[in-house]
Amino acid sequence: VGVAAVVTAAGSGSRLGLAVPKALARVGDAPLVVHAVRAVQASGAVDHVVVTVPVQHRDAFAEVLAPLDVVCVVGGPTRQASVAAGLAAVPADARVVLVHDAARALTPPEVVARVVGAVLDGHPAVVPVVPVTDSVVSVVGEVRPVDRTTLRVSQTPQGFDRDALARAHRAAAARAATEGEAATDDVSLCAAIGIPVSVVDGHLDALKITLPVDLVVAESLLAARATVPSEAPGGRA
Amino acid sequence: VGVAAVVTAAGSGSRLGLAVPKALARVGDAPLVVHAVRAVQASGAVDHVVVTVPVQHRDAFAEVLAPLDVVCVVGGPTRQASVAAGLAAVPADARVVLVHDAARALTPPEVVARVVGAVLDGHPAVVPVVPVTDSVVSVVGEVRPVDRTTLRVSQTPQGFDRDALARAHRAAAARAATEGEAATDDVSLCAAIGIPVSVVDGHLDALKITLPVDLVVAESLLAARATVPSEAPGGRA
Repeated sequence: VGVAAVVTAAGSGSRLGLAVPKALARVGDAPLVVHAVRAVQASGAVDHVVVTVPVQHRDAFAEVLAPLDVVCVVGGPTRQASVAAGLAAVPADARVVLVHDAARALTPPEVVARVVGAVLDGHPAVVPVVPVTDSVVSVVGEVRPVDRTTLRVSQTPQGFDRDALARAHRAAAARAATEGEAATDDVSLCAAIGIPVSVVDGHLDALKITLPVDLVVAESLLAARATVPSEAPGGRA
Repeated sequence: VGVAAVVTAAGSGSRLGLAVPKALARVGDAPLVVHAVRAVQASGAVDHVVVTVPVQHRDAFAEVLAPLDVVCVVGGPTRQASVAAGLAAVPADARVVLVHDAARALTPPEVVARVVGAVLDGHPAVVPVVPVTDSVVSVVGEVRPVDRTTLRVSQTPQGFDRDALARAHRAAAARAATEGEAATDDVSLCAAIGIPVSVVDGHLDALKITLPVDLVVAESLLAARATVPSEAPGGRA
């Protein structure tokens, strides 16, 4: 069974204070998108990588991705449209498709392998998760504490049976025409049409790099890996 | 109306890799507990500060807190017991009591003032909150996406009508005798006995410093404040 990954790299860099897309921001020796692709490939579980890039910056992405064995495609105006464009570029033999956010650049390869394994085990929609460490309140009606042990934080890569993901995206596109887009990730699109969602363990290193302080965190995590490579898989947990 | 703050500083430093309590870890020019007390006092809204400290390290805390106008009391074996011990040491004229975690050392003074203001406006239990920025799933029964706009992340200082907080702690102590402790913060203890909880805006700088990477973040936030002091209140938001 072929396995493909769609890496979305279309996010703007505005909240990082950058004029270029976030995925081109550098940490350590490379841009975020390069770290993300390297980790996917290092998992040994993925055969094809498609990167969706913003049209205005396609040349810059082509340049940084040239040394890697990936296909670049131009994304769409929304995250959902970009994933759909990436999915359309996935080779036909790939029956398992991951969707990964380039901003989760330091996701350990073991997480990628775990997600693929769960899909190959028959789970049609798989999301890596980490515990909720903060206290949380619900603010619908009266404010009340929520038992955080009932919740998990979603990460990427999310993994799918290809047909299930394609079906979820077709349904989402049809809904978007009348209701607008609501879901923030791909397992939510699957859940919306009744496809069961499964969880596997994610990793705190897979944080989404969004704000300037997140780049500081990422540099620190990379430096720690370089110093004590054997401890890298354990990370923050 | 007198306003008092109980600053809890009993957390261990083990997850920071330290042999001393977390609140003695240094960022910038001072230990976390000193930053926390300074911010409470800088709010201009608090008349008395009580710091609860672990008995084994009371001398070290007394030393770093000596230049500040605070009362140190020895905490208990649990967070809840420490808060109760701090509350017992609050002067009788204080009708408003804040409970603040020393590990949220960089909480801006404006958040402290906002919490006090809400209690003075008649809200018996007030929690500062920030939006949930991650995608979240519920894992009770089938995995399903949760609308994160219905949730908020709780921070401290939490603010209380003194009598309401005392009542909530007495009830919690009675429950703990039979059920053990479950709540992770003080507004939860209030909610458990039907006291209405209100929210005010917190601040992303009020992160809880728990892991080594959080110290890196804290140093970065402090450095940014030193460079551009006028932007400090805006912070990460």
